[in-house]
Amino acid sequence: MIRPFSYHDRTLFILDQRLLPLEEKWLPCTSAEEVARAIRTLAVRGAPAIGIAAAYGLVLAAPMGIAQVEAAARILTLARPTAVNLSWAVRRCLAAARFAGEGNLQERLREEADAIWAEEVRANESMATLGAGLFDPGRTYSILTHCNAGSLATGGMGTAVGVIRRLHEQGKLSRAYMDETRPLLQGARITAYELNADGIPCTLITDSMAGWLMKLGRIDAVIVGADRIACNLDAANKVGSYSLAVLAHAHGVPFFIVAPRSTFDPDISTGEEIPIEERSPEEVLTFQGSRSAPQVDVFNPAFDVVPHRLITALITEDGILRPG
Amino acid sequence: MIRPFSYHDRTLFILDQRLLPLEEKWLPCTSAEEVARAIRTLAVRGAPAIGIAAAYGLVLAAPMGIAQVEAAARILTLARPTAVNLSWAVRRCLAAARFAGEGNLQERLREEADAIWAEEVRANESMATLGAGLFDPGRTYSILTHCNAGSLATGGMGTAVGVIRRLHEQGKLSRAYMDETRPLLQGARITAYELNADGIPCTLITDSMAGWLMKLGRIDAVIVGADRIACNLDAANKVGSYSLAVLAHAHGVPFFIVAPRSTFDPDISTGEEIPIEERSPEEVLTFQGSRSAPQVDVFNPAFDVVPHRLITALITEDGILRPG
Repeated sequence: MIRPFSYHDRTLFILDQRLLPLEEKWLPCTSAEEVARAIRTLAVRGAPAIGIAAAYGLVLAAPMGIAQVEAAARILTLARPTAVNLSWAVRRCLAAARFAGEGNLQERLREEADAIWAEEVRANESMATLGAGLFDPGRTYSILTHCNAGSLATGGMGTAVGVIRRLHEQGKLSRAYMDETRPLLQGARITAYELNADGIPCTLITDSMAGWLMKLGRIDAVIVGADRIACNLDAANKVGSYSLAVLAHAHGVPFFIVAPRSTFDPDISTGEEIPIEERSPEEVLTFQGSRSAPQVDVFNPAFDVVPHRLITALITEDGILRPG
Repeated sequence: MIRPFSYHDRTLFILDQRLLPLEEKWLPCTSAEEVARAIRTLAVRGAPAIGIAAAYGLVLAAPMGIAQVEAAARILTLARPTAVNLSWAVRRCLAAARFAGEGNLQERLREEADAIWAEEVRANESMATLGAGLFDPGRTYSILTHCNAGSLATGGMGTAVGVIRRLHEQGKLSRAYMDETRPLLQGARITAYELNADGIPCTLITDSMAGWLMKLGRIDAVIVGADRIACNLDAANKVGSYSLAVLAHAHGVPFFIVAPRSTFDPDISTGEEIPIEERSPEEVLTFQGSRSAPQVDVFNPAFDVVPHRLITALITEDGILRPG
C-alpha cells in the first residue's frame, strides 16, 4: 500500500505528490512550518491526509512547549481553508495537549497523531465494505471517480478509491474510469498511479468526457470523496464534482460521496457557508510546467459544492446517509 | 485579423496551431498530401478551416491533372472523419474540376477555393450579426464558449467567437469565459490568444468549472461551433459540448450553436449516425511532451453530439433555427 507519509526519527517524511507519477521524492519535515508549507503547496493533499499530516506537525512543535504547539496549530489550520479535517485534527490534538503535562506533551501528541491515522485507516476499511455493499453481487459495474480519494489522500485504502478497491476484490468491478482532474491532474497522476499499481482495470478520460460516457451508458455510478460536509449534507469536493453530480442526475446514474466523520462539519448548516479556496492562476495557465495559455484572467476555485439533493448516498464508517 | 493560412507562390502556408500561443510558425505545403497531413495532425483545425485548406490542397494537385486531383480528393477527405465541411468542400471543388478543361483546371480550382473561403468569411459576418441580435441591447452578457470557433477555425471572424466579437462591438458583452478544452487546449491556447489580441475581456477556466460557474449565476449563455449537424439538428462538436449542453439545460442557461450551411449534412438524419473520431491516447497522457499520467488505458473521443432538444437555437448565415 502506497502511503502519503511516514513518521520516524522525529521527522515527518512526506511523499511529494506534485511530482507523481514521474518521481517518488520524500520531503523530510522537521518543523510544523515545514508541514504547513507541504500542505499549502500540495506536496500532501486530500482531506483526511492533510488532517493526519497536521497532527504530526504538532508533534514536531512539541519539544518547544505548549505555547509553540498552540502557535503551530494556528499556522497549520490556516494552510488550507476548505477541508475541515485539517482544523478538526488540529483541535483534537490541541485538546489532548492541554490535558498533558509539559513532560509528556510530545508523547501525548504522538499518541494522538498515531490514533488519528489508525482511525482513518479503519474508517477507510469500513467505508469500503459499506460502499461495496450497495452494489449487487453477481454483476459488474463501471465506476467513475474524480480527483484522488485513494491511499495518498487518506493514509488508508482510500474513501472513493477504497470502495473501488473493495468492489474489485469482490469481483464486482468491470472498470474504473478516472477524470484527469485539471488543473492539477490528481486523477491522471495519482489515481491512475494507485489503480495501476494494484492491477485494477482503469481508463483515463479528460474531465469534459464524463457526460458523454454517461450518455453512452458506460458509467453505472459516480463515487467521489469530500473535503467538507455541512449539516444538511451538502458536500464540498474537488472542483468538477458539482458538474458530475448534475450530469449523473440527468442520466439517472447514482452519485455517491464517501467520507469519514472527520469530514463532517457540525458548525456549518449548508454548503453555502463552506469557504472555497481560490488558487493561483498559474495552475491553469500552465500544464506540468509548460505554458498552455497567454497571460489572461483566470478563475481557479479548487472546490465546488454538491447540493445534497444530487447525492444518492453518503457513505461513512458508521453507516450510510441518504439525503432526504 | 489572424488567419489560419495564406495561399501564394503555389504554396499553402498553414499557421501551425499546435504551437500557439508560444510560437507562430508557418508550414509551407506544396502538395495535397502535405495539406492532408497538416489536417490530420491538427496543424490546421476547425470545421470550416479544414474545408478551405482541403480546397487549396486540390489546387496544389491540379498541375498533375484531373486523375491526381481525384486521388488527392480521396486522401484529403479521409484526413479527418467528423467535420463534414471537409468532404463538402472537396466534393464541391471536384464538381467544378470535372466541368473545367485540363487547360484551366488549376485556375478553376483556385477560383473555387477562393470562393469557398470568401463565402465562409461572409457567412461568419452574417452569423455574428444574427447571433448578437438574439441578445437585448441595453444590458451586458457573460458568454461561455468551448474549444475554438474563431478566426483560426474558420478563416473569417469566427462562428461562436464571431458572435462574441459582435456582442463586444455592440457593447453587449461583459465577459467571455473560455473552457481550456482538454486534451489539446484549443480554448486556452487559441481562443484566449484571439480574444486577448482583440482586447476582449475574457477569463479562462478548466472544463470542469463550467457547471459551477452556471450555478454561481455567472453565465448568461453558452455559444459554441459545430463540426457536423444532422437533419434533425443534432450537432457534433468538440468533446465536452454535450456536458455543457446538459449543464446549461439544468441551469436554464440558453445553449447556442453557430455554424454555416457547410456544416449541415443532408445525408445524415440523426446525431447517432455521425462518425466520432477517436484520437491517440498520447493526447491525454501527455502535454507538450510532458508526461501527465502513467501508461494506462485511455478513452479519447475528439467529439461528442449535442441532441437537438438541448439546443436553444442554431445560428446560420441564412437565419436562426429553433429545434422543436
